Amino acid sequence: MKEELIKEIVEKVIDNIVGCQECSMEIPLEVSARHVHLSKEHMEFLFGSQDQLKTLKELSQPGQFVYDKRVTLMGSKGFISNVAILGPARSDTQVEISYTDARTLGVNPPIRESGNLEGTGRIIIAAGGKAVNLNQGVIIAKRHIHMTPKDAEDLQVKDGQQVKVRIKSKRPVVLEEVLIRVSGKYRLSMHIDHDEGNAAAYRPGTIGVIIK
Amino acid sequence: MKEELIKEIVEKVIDNIVGCQECSMEIPLEVSARHVHLSKEHMEFLFGSQDQLKTLKELSQPGQFVYDKRVTLMGSKGFISNVAILGPARSDTQVEISYTDARTLGVNPPIRESGNLEGTGRIIIAAGGKAVNLNQGVIIAKRHIHMTPKDAEDLQVKDGQQVKVRIKSKRPVVLEEVLIRVSGKYRLSMHIDHDEGNAAAYRPGTIGVIIK
Repeated sequence: MKEELIKEIVEKVIDNIVGCQECSMEIPLEVSARHVHLSKEHMEFLFGSQDQLKTLKELSQPGQFVYDKRVTLMGSKGFISNVAILGPARSDTQVEISYTDARTLGVNPPIRESGNLEGTGRIIIAAGGKAVNLNQGVIIAKRHIHMTPKDAEDLQVKDGQQVKVRIKSKRPVVLEEVLIRVSGKYRLSMHIDHDEGNAAAYRPGTIGVIIK
Repeated sequence: MKEELIKEIVEKVIDNIVGCQECSMEIPLEVSARHVHLSKEHMEFLFGSQDQLKTLKELSQPGQFVYDKRVTLMGSKGFISNVAILGPARSDTQVEISYTDARTLGVNPPIRESGNLEGTGRIIIAAGGKAVNLNQGVIIAKRHIHMTPKDAEDLQVKDGQQVKVRIKSKRPVVLEEVLIRVSGKYRLSMHIDHDEGNAAAYRPGTIGVIIK
């Protein structure tokens, strides 16, 4: 074997070892339950006015919260009631569910990044005796990590990059294609859905580690 | 850097590359829905006699089948009806559910290999107006791969060994601690539950590849 090739391989091995040490920072993990984001128009249509909804509790991402009202989702096969509404209001209504929920409801949403709703699934959103026929907006949220520019620097990742994350638990898994989302408004936290959480035997306090 | 160390590292790298090529055999994947295995005694108690149960369909593992009757599972928080009974009868009744089911039922079963039931969860199994109070037997089945001795030789794994399996899908994951189970009676197939299947966006035909 040629000396240059040996040198190249050794350097790659060392890079990997160093790389792994550098990215051993623990990422707090949160399981997002099914929820909706409503547009102002849909909020007013379902509840009369936006003032009818109050903040119930703050979420881990700064400025995000849960309203004190709930909605029911209805698909072709079934319904799910008592679904949380997250605030503040958005320009487009968005429904985030799991594959388990999709089967219960009889809908077939794509895996999408939040806000990318073109051609996504249909659903009925009901509350207070009124129903919105949503033509698009149902997604299975693509797993992602919220972080600040400082976190991104420490973890040596960039906004929009996809990484692998090993979930340390009694049923360990590596989740691939995890999207990095960087903003000064975020707080470091990885968001997965209940299917992903259950597959990894998630408990509060479970953490993830980035593997590049 | 010393020459021996370089040689050692290069050999390890080559071993890994060769190892990965050799284990690239595709493993068919099956999602096991919640089900029960009943003892003869429980079958007779619930249905009067074993003759009351007929084979509905054969399963992928030779000699295993689904009966034409169903049971209801009841926990402290809820119930799940229409649960399949797998045959043939076993010496001990065993209930296999997912974390999603465990939450619905209000039970807290451990992750266990089939048949290892010491100290596992309690549940009520009901059918035909009768109920069995099962003191132990509820598990979350540890993910595993059934294979023949020939498969094990080809894949260079042993019975009882644990491996990592990469699920190739539109939401790829690596499932760690997957148990190898070898028997001449088996057919090559990896069994995961619905949580694991949904986390990996499983569709019929999805396959896995062993990563050692």
